[in-house]
Amino acid sequence: MEAKKISKTMLGRLPGYLNYLKSLPEDTNVNISATTMAKALNLGDVQVRKDLAVVSGGGRRKTGHLRETLISDIENFLDYNNTTNAILIGAGKLGQALMDYNGFEVFGLDILVGFDIDESLTRTQEGKPIYPMEELEDFCRARNVTLGIITVPANAAQGVCDRLVACGIEAIWNFAPVHLNVPDHVLVQSENLAVSLTALRMQLKERDKAAVE
Amino acid sequence: MEAKKISKTMLGRLPGYLNYLKSLPEDTNVNISATTMAKALNLGDVQVRKDLAVVSGGGRRKTGHLRETLISDIENFLDYNNTTNAILIGAGKLGQALMDYNGFEVFGLDILVGFDIDESLTRTQEGKPIYPMEELEDFCRARNVTLGIITVPANAAQGVCDRLVACGIEAIWNFAPVHLNVPDHVLVQSENLAVSLTALRMQLKERDKAAVE
Repeated sequence: MEAKKISKTMLGRLPGYLNYLKSLPEDTNVNISATTMAKALNLGDVQVRKDLAVVSGGGRRKTGHLRETLISDIENFLDYNNTTNAILIGAGKLGQALMDYNGFEVFGLDILVGFDIDESLTRTQEGKPIYPMEELEDFCRARNVTLGIITVPANAAQGVCDRLVACGIEAIWNFAPVHLNVPDHVLVQSENLAVSLTALRMQLKERDKAAVE
Repeated sequence: MEAKKISKTMLGRLPGYLNYLKSLPEDTNVNISATTMAKALNLGDVQVRKDLAVVSGGGRRKTGHLRETLISDIENFLDYNNTTNAILIGAGKLGQALMDYNGFEVFGLDILVGFDIDESLTRTQEGKPIYPMEELEDFCRARNVTLGIITVPANAAQGVCDRLVACGIEAIWNFAPVHLNVPDHVLVQSENLAVSLTALRMQLKERDKAAVE
């Protein structure tokens, strides 16, 4: 089966729909139209209609979508009801920020533990545990871990990645600013903040130049 | 003048070229070819050649690029030699991770201070200062701040954004998982980690489905 191609911009809108639908008072009309949602969220009518059609099929012409159905259709589409077990490697400031952020759980991600080469960071009492790196393989073997989050410095990232792959990790969420080489069966999603930042700064520079000329 | 359209994937490769060129031992040949770089970085020959041509013009047929020239051309292209003054709003864990990360400075970003609505976070002694929100306008007026980083919860982000725009901020780097409405002259770059995560999880799910079928 070929994976559906869903644009990231559409994926980006779906959580907003969900928040909006869930935020409506309990006694709100059980039906809701794409037009109402578009207005509330300051989006195009046609865009919302199309998104909802992909996720939930077309609403009824006159009555729109049934609110509860729409909520569960979006959640199923985004696979929020299943949980992916993840571990995080590199429990520095960014790593700990990601570990301590509860918000990912609604998106179906459970960061079980963090690992760090610096054993002074080891903790088992408060917050999510942090283990020394040498326990990585045993932990992965014991638990069904499918996703690894890499938040180590750039020069350590490939080595960590190789160890994760050897542990049977299927997907890597990479925050280190390097390209990772992985076998074909492993998925990688990289967050390169420096690239986003540079893109923003370059736009700013070009715009300022344009304003001068 | 129209801003050059540079792909993000190309922007993503340039820092890698820079690291590689800078990492070469001092006594390395002063000339370097796209082929050598492509091999070292595990990239396509043609791709590297094209990237370097955009940034630095074509190398000489036989001798390739002069290493020092290439380094400064890439740095200029990425505008790393100028500094953008930034402030950060929302000094929670993610906010503090970004503030304390020294790595952005090489990319031309200087996060001067953070602001937070929680005054118990106020600090002026160690690390980058954190000020209470009420000092935002005065600070922006006093310093030449062009970029605002938003790391507040989703429901507070638009309010913070409006205040930044009123302060004359020209670009916003948004980490809150919401769409921000800004006037046309303000640039926004959003980092939506939940979207990246969901995209990764959906690919994983589709692939596992494909493997079963």
